Amino acid sequence: MTKLKWGMIGGGKGSQIGPAHRLGAQADGLFEFAAGALDHDAEAGRAYAAELGVRGYADWQEMLEAERGKLDLVTVATPNATHFEITKAYLEAGFNVLCEKPMTMTVEEGEEILRVAETSGKICAVNYCYSAYPMVRQARAMVRAGEIGKVRLVVTNFSHGHHGDATDADNPRVRWRYDPAMAGVSGQFADCGIHALHMASFICDDEVETLSADFASTIPSRELEDDAMVNFRMAGGTVGRLWTSSVAIGRQHGFDIQIFGETGGLRWASEQPNQLIYTPMGGRTQIIEKGEGGLHDDAARLSRVAIAHPEGFPLAVANIYVDLAAAIRGESRDGLPGAEAGLRSMAAVHQAVASAKSGGDWVDARPPMFR
Amino acid sequence: MTKLKWGMIGGGKGSQIGPAHRLGAQADGLFEFAAGALDHDAEAGRAYAAELGVRGYADWQEMLEAERGKLDLVTVATPNATHFEITKAYLEAGFNVLCEKPMTMTVEEGEEILRVAETSGKICAVNYCYSAYPMVRQARAMVRAGEIGKVRLVVTNFSHGHHGDATDADNPRVRWRYDPAMAGVSGQFADCGIHALHMASFICDDEVETLSADFASTIPSRELEDDAMVNFRMAGGTVGRLWTSSVAIGRQHGFDIQIFGETGGLRWASEQPNQLIYTPMGGRTQIIEKGEGGLHDDAARLSRVAIAHPEGFPLAVANIYVDLAAAIRGESRDGLPGAEAGLRSMAAVHQAVASAKSGGDWVDARPPMFR
Amino acid sequence: MTKLKWGMIGGGKGSQIGPAHRLGAQADGLFEFAAGALDHDAEAGRAYAAELGVRGYADWQEMLEAERGKLDLVTVATPNATHFEITKAYLEAGFNVLCEKPMTMTVEEGEEILRVAETSGKICAVNYCYSAYPMVRQARAMVRAGEIGKVRLVVTNFSHGHHGDATDADNPRVRWRYDPAMAGVSGQFADCGIHALHMASFICDDEVETLSADFASTIPSRELEDDAMVNFRMAGGTVGRLWTSSVAIGRQHGFDIQIFGETGGLRWASEQPNQLIYTPMGGRTQIIEKGEGGLHDDAARLSRVAIAHPEGFPLAVANIYVDLAAAIRGESRDGLPGAEAGLRSMAAVHQAVASAKSGGDWVDARPPMFR
Amino acid sequence: MTKLKWGMIGGGKGSQIGPAHRLGAQADGLFEFAAGALDHDAEAGRAYAAELGVRGYADWQEMLEAERGKLDLVTVATPNATHFEITKAYLEAGFNVLCEKPMTMTVEEGEEILRVAETSGKICAVNYCYSAYPMVRQARAMVRAGEIGKVRLVVTNFSHGHHGDATDADNPRVRWRYDPAMAGVSGQFADCGIHALHMASFICDDEVETLSADFASTIPSRELEDDAMVNFRMAGGTVGRLWTSSVAIGRQHGFDIQIFGETGGLRWASEQPNQLIYTPMGGRTQIIEKGEGGLHDDAARLSRVAIAHPEGFPLAVANIYVDLAAAIRGESRDGLPGAEAGLRSMAAVHQAVASAKSGGDWVDARPPMFR
Repeated sequence: MTKLKWGMIGGGKGSQIGPAHRLGAQADGLFEFAAGALDHDAEAGRAYAAELGVRGYADWQEMLEAERGKLDLVTVATPNATHFEITKAYLEAGFNVLCEKPMTMTVEEGEEILRVAETSGKICAVNYCYSAYPMVRQARAMVRAGEIGKVRLVVTNFSHGHHGDATDADNPRVRWRYDPAMAGVSGQFADCGIHALHMASFICDDEVETLSADFASTIPSRELEDDAMVNFRMAGGTVGRLWTSSVAIGRQHGFDIQIFGETGGLRWASEQPNQLIYTPMGGRTQIIEKGEGGLHDDAARLSRVAIAHPEGFPLAVANIYVDLAAAIRGESRDGLPGAEAGLRSMAAVHQAVASAKSGGDWVDARPPMFR
Repeated sequence: MTKLKWGMIGGGKGSQIGPAHRLGAQADGLFEFAAGALDHDAEAGRAYAAELGVRGYADWQEMLEAERGKLDLVTVATPNATHFEITKAYLEAGFNVLCEKPMTMTVEEGEEILRVAETSGKICAVNYCYSAYPMVRQARAMVRAGEIGKVRLVVTNFSHGHHGDATDADNPRVRWRYDPAMAGVSGQFADCGIHALHMASFICDDEVETLSADFASTIPSRELEDDAMVNFRMAGGTVGRLWTSSVAIGRQHGFDIQIFGETGGLRWASEQPNQLIYTPMGGRTQIIEKGEGGLHDDAARLSRVAIAHPEGFPLAVANIYVDLAAAIRGESRDGLPGAEAGLRSMAAVHQAVASAKSGGDWVDARPPMFR
Repeated sequence: MTKLKWGMIGGGKGSQIGPAHRLGAQADGLFEFAAGALDHDAEAGRAYAAELGVRGYADWQEMLEAERGKLDLVTVATPNATHFEITKAYLEAGFNVLCEKPMTMTVEEGEEILRVAETSGKICAVNYCYSAYPMVRQARAMVRAGEIGKVRLVVTNFSHGHHGDATDADNPRVRWRYDPAMAGVSGQFADCGIHALHMASFICDDEVETLSADFASTIPSRELEDDAMVNFRMAGGTVGRLWTSSVAIGRQHGFDIQIFGETGGLRWASEQPNQLIYTPMGGRTQIIEKGEGGLHDDAARLSRVAIAHPEGFPLAVANIYVDLAAAIRGESRDGLPGAEAGLRSMAAVHQAVASAKSGGDWVDARPPMFR
Repeated sequence: MTKLKWGMIGGGKGSQIGPAHRLGAQADGLFEFAAGALDHDAEAGRAYAAELGVRGYADWQEMLEAERGKLDLVTVATPNATHFEITKAYLEAGFNVLCEKPMTMTVEEGEEILRVAETSGKICAVNYCYSAYPMVRQARAMVRAGEIGKVRLVVTNFSHGHHGDATDADNPRVRWRYDPAMAGVSGQFADCGIHALHMASFICDDEVETLSADFASTIPSRELEDDAMVNFRMAGGTVGRLWTSSVAIGRQHGFDIQIFGETGGLRWASEQPNQLIYTPMGGRTQIIEKGEGGLHDDAARLSRVAIAHPEGFPLAVANIYVDLAAAIRGESRDGLPGAEAGLRSMAAVHQAVASAKSGGDWVDARPPMFR
């Protein structure tokens, strides 16, 4: 099986996201890194591409022209505000695209991407990589198989404390998150909250229909929220609770989710991702281990090493690429988050902002095209 | 030091709460169990009192008359709807009272108790026993000492899954919780949520001013809520998030609290009550152990055995009695929850119900007399 | 049911062990604290007894004469080297005795106590209080019921770091532990190790037959060991591994035990005593909670409050008194550790010392009278 | 930077170890997989090589001749008994080699490999991959920097229960481990124990000098041990305790290590590899997180993603390749386990067997050439 050809926009020298995607694409030997427009500085981008041994370009436009028909997949890992333009252009030019989240800045752009992806017939995936952990897939498969009954309640948090220092007001790596000029309408909810909201939908196999939000800027100098609570209801009636914060000092990467059904409950946490905690109603809590016998297929196939040998975040990203490789080769991968997921997130962000501004009114969380 | 004389109303044979209070009162040798009206069945109550070797009475009225001036403290552990009447009568008759929560069913009753307690000059305590864990006192003392700076955010949960079985609709031990005729205006929030709300106030040393609630009956046959989310704001500006549920299958007794300040964060969980987790901003997470050197006074004095020898729930109840004994002897114990705490809880319950019915409107959480 | 009368030798003002026993005896209302020879200083002892409201004595001899026939139980909580003489005298005088561990300093003394206890017909219990945690009783009952098959292997640790400071050489609270003149032949193994060894026998319902020991004084100025490893074999063939240390800085009270049988494994840890971890062979790890439905009788009856309300060390001590009260009233309590357990510990200590001195030779761990 | 060329012997279709090495070599884009003799079945090996897109060979001899001078590194992942012959031949032919553990079956072979590696000037690394976890490197660096003082005691376990089923006697994947004809002189200690022993040396930066062993075949049909305890002393005087088991049902992959020094203690566990637990003497336990600021260099450079994004076992293997790539390019990497480590492990295995047979005699654990 020859390797698929892969290119990247963004992810230049010193970025966190570049190495994560290169590892994700290359870890399983499925993709060959072939080309990149890696930096907004054309020279730096070309130099870094040369260092990495791939074809380098000054910008995404140049790369699009030169690589047309030569790449099986392009990853877009540029600043958020550019995702829409680049993703759209590559899809229209016939590339498959993996776009970093958020897919777009507005709902209208999201609807546009969805239309372009459908028209082009190309894959447009969005990197909701937490959904690709084996134990998240196990949770989803258990819910689908009815193993906890109809889901009554889903509770999820994505809270950290890395923006808890008020004196960081001038730290450019932090400040932009709370500046509408750069971050758009939402700070913490758009950054981390949508991962949690996506996962709630993903595991429950259901869509968020309505929501009510309470946003706070606990550091008063911030224009956008650094803490948010979003209550929601899913189409199937499930009640949802989502808390996200960037001032929760002591939480490092507190992304967790609990799913409570009629006949059982599940818990998963991103800092201990290889275990899924399951309690059947009236029974004892059990620890489901990545790699144990009898897992659902989607969980079993995404494990690489034996039970209790932990697999972490970079391999969850790699799992997105595993599913992309399969999808590019024509196999169905319904766990791969696509443009619709990206659009739904963006609608939820904008509606949560509206709700918070209104003092918590319940609003329709869906994109207009799905109402 | 002679033992104080103690009596109990309720807590009859087979109850959970009776042994908990008897252990709490007797564990440290501070109180002598002297009298009781232990059962709504007069005969059973007298027989059980005889078995326990104390003076027994047919009902609380009989006991009030007979024990006037003979008891240093009476504990009221009867069904919720009777707390008001009994507590009021005993206070007026010159007894000190420890009342189980909820102190009353209505706000008006709560205001009345507060007035009677003040007029009588007697102690009226409410059994918010979680607040008496040594590590909860440590958290409160750290907040007061400014060790985490001004508190920006407090997040607390009290969620279990013991009412998760829909077929329990006819189980009398469960059903009454969701029946307004017996439970009043609120189910899960009034039962467990107010412990969490009290603890938020207690540790932050601040009062809840406004709130917005989302209630759900995830088991549709229930008239009252079995799951609730309450967002709130404290007088000092602290943002609050409180989730409580009785259908969270797999959570046994998930009462925990996180307090995030300007310069640090704290975490405590009732299932592992002997540790307090502390993270100074920019530093490493530390584990503070009950019994370690250098604890704040209020935490140190309420520990009985050495570091890492766990102390549990019954001794938290006992700590309430430790503080009561001190208060009865005239020492100041500002950590002892009193009638004001009981009243504030009741106001919060009623206002949360109103908010939830209105679709989440922000309402004043305070009792009218404190607005 | 009238309360049983209880007296204590030792446990004077400021001791840790006095309050623990008073709480243990009084928590459940089973014993009335009636008399004490509480201090080696006669005046101080009498004064403290008066303060506690009990009959006070200058020394144990005076108390023995005065209380003959008046007490249902006497607890011996004096310095280790005096346990033998006092326990023996009280048994011979017709008292039931609860002796702190170690029961004696020599094997011969232990054999003597066992004989005296048998002759007198009185109860001689030894305070291996960890064995009275509900979840330890559950483990033992599961083993007896064959739920993990024949036990192949038991692994236990009791390690802390509270003697890890070499500059403590002059601290009298630490120094005596490593001084043969005061502590006898063994330091850490005799102090903590025998709790672990007793628990291995207790849960496995089997006796240690042979052992091989490796002792170390990791702080060179210490004459006795501060770290020990003891391998052993039980009568039924079970392999045992026991590590104990007082220089394991960072372990607070690291007493845990793992039991591995033909068809399952169990784990319990004293710092989280309300859970027992169970893995059936080929199945998932399960969390057994104190207070859950379906526990074995001995575990169920020793729980006081509902599931997930933690109970801790003082209530494990109280459970010893619960079983003593039952035994005094003539009910059988086979879980109550008696003189034989005290004797076997002492034999194991002396034989481990001999083995360690020989470079790890395997030796008979049993008291001569049981060989 | 052009990629280094890499080949593999063994790791054929369906093996666990093949994918782990391919991921390890390719994850960071440092090596290009170029050639392989992947299967003892020549046809199957060639076919799998073709499928993977690399040059395929019938056996290691054919590959050695054909690839001489063309590969920068060869990984030997064949059955244990063949490691010596293949590793020796490749070193002599001028290849750098990464050999799976155990490097050899006998001490003499180990000494031979060490000599050949030195003579050839080539790199001979052994895959003690656990030593390449960032937090293990942090522990080692802290010990070296004196942050816990002189190490008094190291306690390590590597115990699982995956061979706990006695009816597995005929399961070929299990049976060979306990059959001297295939596994050599030792079962569980040679399989898992040597990882733990290596890590003790690695973190303490010291060598095991003497040891005493207790082996048991808890499943009686096994000729080799399935459970072992090894006490040891290091050259610098550190006391060591090592327990390893394959019948510890309920432990999945229980590899952990605790290091206790004069001024602090450290703990690390392979199932939660991204945290290192540190307790300064007299202070609070702290959680050191992979990726936090201020880590020692060797820990910082081997982290790929941000704090609290877990990295797992496959990336520890990848870290071995990171260090190999650097070493091949001429940079010093003193953390890379080499032939000496492989030899020391083999000597310890053989001496532990001798000690266990003698009833626990203390023996010299060192290879003859280092005595």
